[in-house]
Amino acid sequence: MFAEIITIGDELLIGQVIDTNSGFIAKQLNKIGVSVYQITSIQDDKSHIIKALKEAESNADIVILTGGLGPTKDDITKKTIAEYFNDTLVKDTAVLKNIEHLWKHYVGGTLLQVNKDQALVPSKAQVLMNKLGTAPGMWLEKGDKVFVSLPGVPYEMNALMDHHVIPKLKDKYNCPFILHKTLLVYGLGESALADRIESWEDALPEHIKLAYLPSLGKMRLRLSAKGFDEQQVKEEVQNEIDKVLPLIKNEFFGFEDEEGSVEIIIAKHLTKIGKTLAIAESCTGGTVAERFTVNSGASAYFNGGIVTYSTESKINVLGVSKNDIETHSVVSSQVVESMAQNALRLFQSDFALATTGNAGPTKGDSDAEVGTVFIGIATKNGVYSEGFNFGNHRVKVINKAVNKALEMMLKEIFKN
Amino acid sequence: MFAEIITIGDELLIGQVIDTNSGFIAKQLNKIGVSVYQITSIQDDKSHIIKALKEAESNADIVILTGGLGPTKDDITKKTIAEYFNDTLVKDTAVLKNIEHLWKHYVGGTLLQVNKDQALVPSKAQVLMNKLGTAPGMWLEKGDKVFVSLPGVPYEMNALMDHHVIPKLKDKYNCPFILHKTLLVYGLGESALADRIESWEDALPEHIKLAYLPSLGKMRLRLSAKGFDEQQVKEEVQNEIDKVLPLIKNEFFGFEDEEGSVEIIIAKHLTKIGKTLAIAESCTGGTVAERFTVNSGASAYFNGGIVTYSTESKINVLGVSKNDIETHSVVSSQVVESMAQNALRLFQSDFALATTGNAGPTKGDSDAEVGTVFIGIATKNGVYSEGFNFGNHRVKVINKAVNKALEMMLKEIFKN
Repeated sequence: MFAEIITIGDELLIGQVIDTNSGFIAKQLNKIGVSVYQITSIQDDKSHIIKALKEAESNADIVILTGGLGPTKDDITKKTIAEYFNDTLVKDTAVLKNIEHLWKHYVGGTLLQVNKDQALVPSKAQVLMNKLGTAPGMWLEKGDKVFVSLPGVPYEMNALMDHHVIPKLKDKYNCPFILHKTLLVYGLGESALADRIESWEDALPEHIKLAYLPSLGKMRLRLSAKGFDEQQVKEEVQNEIDKVLPLIKNEFFGFEDEEGSVEIIIAKHLTKIGKTLAIAESCTGGTVAERFTVNSGASAYFNGGIVTYSTESKINVLGVSKNDIETHSVVSSQVVESMAQNALRLFQSDFALATTGNAGPTKGDSDAEVGTVFIGIATKNGVYSEGFNFGNHRVKVINKAVNKALEMMLKEIFKN
Repeated sequence: MFAEIITIGDELLIGQVIDTNSGFIAKQLNKIGVSVYQITSIQDDKSHIIKALKEAESNADIVILTGGLGPTKDDITKKTIAEYFNDTLVKDTAVLKNIEHLWKHYVGGTLLQVNKDQALVPSKAQVLMNKLGTAPGMWLEKGDKVFVSLPGVPYEMNALMDHHVIPKLKDKYNCPFILHKTLLVYGLGESALADRIESWEDALPEHIKLAYLPSLGKMRLRLSAKGFDEQQVKEEVQNEIDKVLPLIKNEFFGFEDEEGSVEIIIAKHLTKIGKTLAIAESCTGGTVAERFTVNSGASAYFNGGIVTYSTESKINVLGVSKNDIETHSVVSSQVVESMAQNALRLFQSDFALATTGNAGPTKGDSDAEVGTVFIGIATKNGVYSEGFNFGNHRVKVINKAVNKALEMMLKEIFKN
């Protein structure tokens, strides 16, 4: 069972907006055994949309479109779909009611004609009610094939996928079971890892696919398999995992699919053992804290964080000694350890993580070379730190520092 | 002049990795007058890559591929390109030297055969030397058409685009000038804005395109035009801007293309007037700070931030009065104003921004309804706050709060 995702919007083609919708849709489809054959991003242009629809219809069983359903003149998806299906637009009273309700509660004032027109849908379409916005989702069938049109606003699209599209697809099709297992590996580069597991990889059965996903400072190794017998697929994949784990026993840190990302593994473990975390950041500027707090449940273990960007704030707010800064420089193991210890104390937490460094492009309050980062960890038993050079690309330095900090914290909490 | 971008990798099709590469490439191409016709994401599969290459060749003048150039077995782009060009792979000694150099400096140990093989390139290809990684970029021509293959690692791809692909494309083609101007508009929804500017929009010349880009809590209005006479394109667009600005004079806050995002407008203005900023966050958990610190130059105006996630840390670290919290609840205007004032004092800054709220999905330390957020601003002249309800979707609540906080700060710094 194959799907094609078509994302519509000039903003995607000029790089103004990054398409996160297709990733979300692909993930949800995968969970019910639908593989995505292709993701195609195109302009708000009638003939191009029709061309893409034709190609998708010949490639896939399910075609999911997002975008171009707004109330303004540049939004032409709905009209174009009606044309593709030789259909006309008719008013849907339930959609109109929903629009009126949303308008009254969240906007106020007179409902404009362009908003009322959002209640027009192709007569052949089944409406997928969008409780979060004025553009309805639409479900159309053509022979055995399904076409779904969804608004481009991510949280509206997400809700429609979860509550309507996925349940309806599960009803309609007998889908195979798809399993991805992703192993988080630290401390081995892509080719060193490939070398280490070569004989295992060569012996993998044909229908189990392996992928290497390098990311700044970590590797993900993904096994994928599908089949109609869920139990058999699970056993076959587990069997391969049992063979590969002994080869990477010091570098393996968990499964991403089940546990989520590194920060989620940390969050779950801290919540389980009833311990708390605090963070003091300089060069990473709040990104480490954000990685934790974006997920729900953070209040169970995350006491707080502090971004001491300026040298003065390291002294005044975090209580790092002025003398340490003058003697060792603000980018040093002494300072990062003091930051971690002070964060531990201030936030009364069990673990504290600190970063200080120079992300560039120019040298800041320190003479440290661009790319130099120190990461420190304090616990009730003591404090330690490590120094790194992450190169001279600002965003890369920040991301590498964040990943390394999370890696060090992961190792720390699993020490005991 | 049209380009098509093909991003290759199973991880994109299962939603494990979000494709940020094509957005970057599209933006760079646009700057030199190349429009992107389509972005296509496909699997690491030979026949699919060849099909996509054929379609792209018929659609576009320039085809840019990313991904699938790693050293491991799932990376098949290079072999497939060689096949598409009826070509064979030959060893490039300069690439091998680069690989050996990178290996020696950043990895160490014996160079593996799979890494040496990364120096194999199609004989018809011109190598684009990748100083940041072991996979070289490749430039191939077929008649008037150009095919470029780049590694999928974002910062390697970025550097190759900037230093090789863009200059070479500028050399080869006489490209039209493309201009996008994006107006940041606060305080009007998509349809209300459309209604306000309707007669202006209807009178827009055919070759100037208008797009509405709604985002949580703000609107962007984008005008796009292209032509061979740069001066004329600029004048025509400016002429339309001069007509529309009086219609939205209270809602217009700046141009995104020139000034960058709201946080960059704030950053530039604070740097210019020599004032500083501090941030105290609860429900936004470091995201506001991260928005500022991800851009270089933050140390000129950003003194620091504090994430007081737990109630205890609001009292102990930020000095909010326990009595205020007990009397008014932790999600209240009193608490957010105290957070802002204390951040102002602690970080010795001119402006401070604070957030407190309940992002959900469950109620936290407060009885406040899910979605309730208070945002406060303190300056040396005083403090004020506003309360909001941003709905019950966690990520949406956080993002709306961040955007609203930035909007309030933008308005504050331009008050004077």
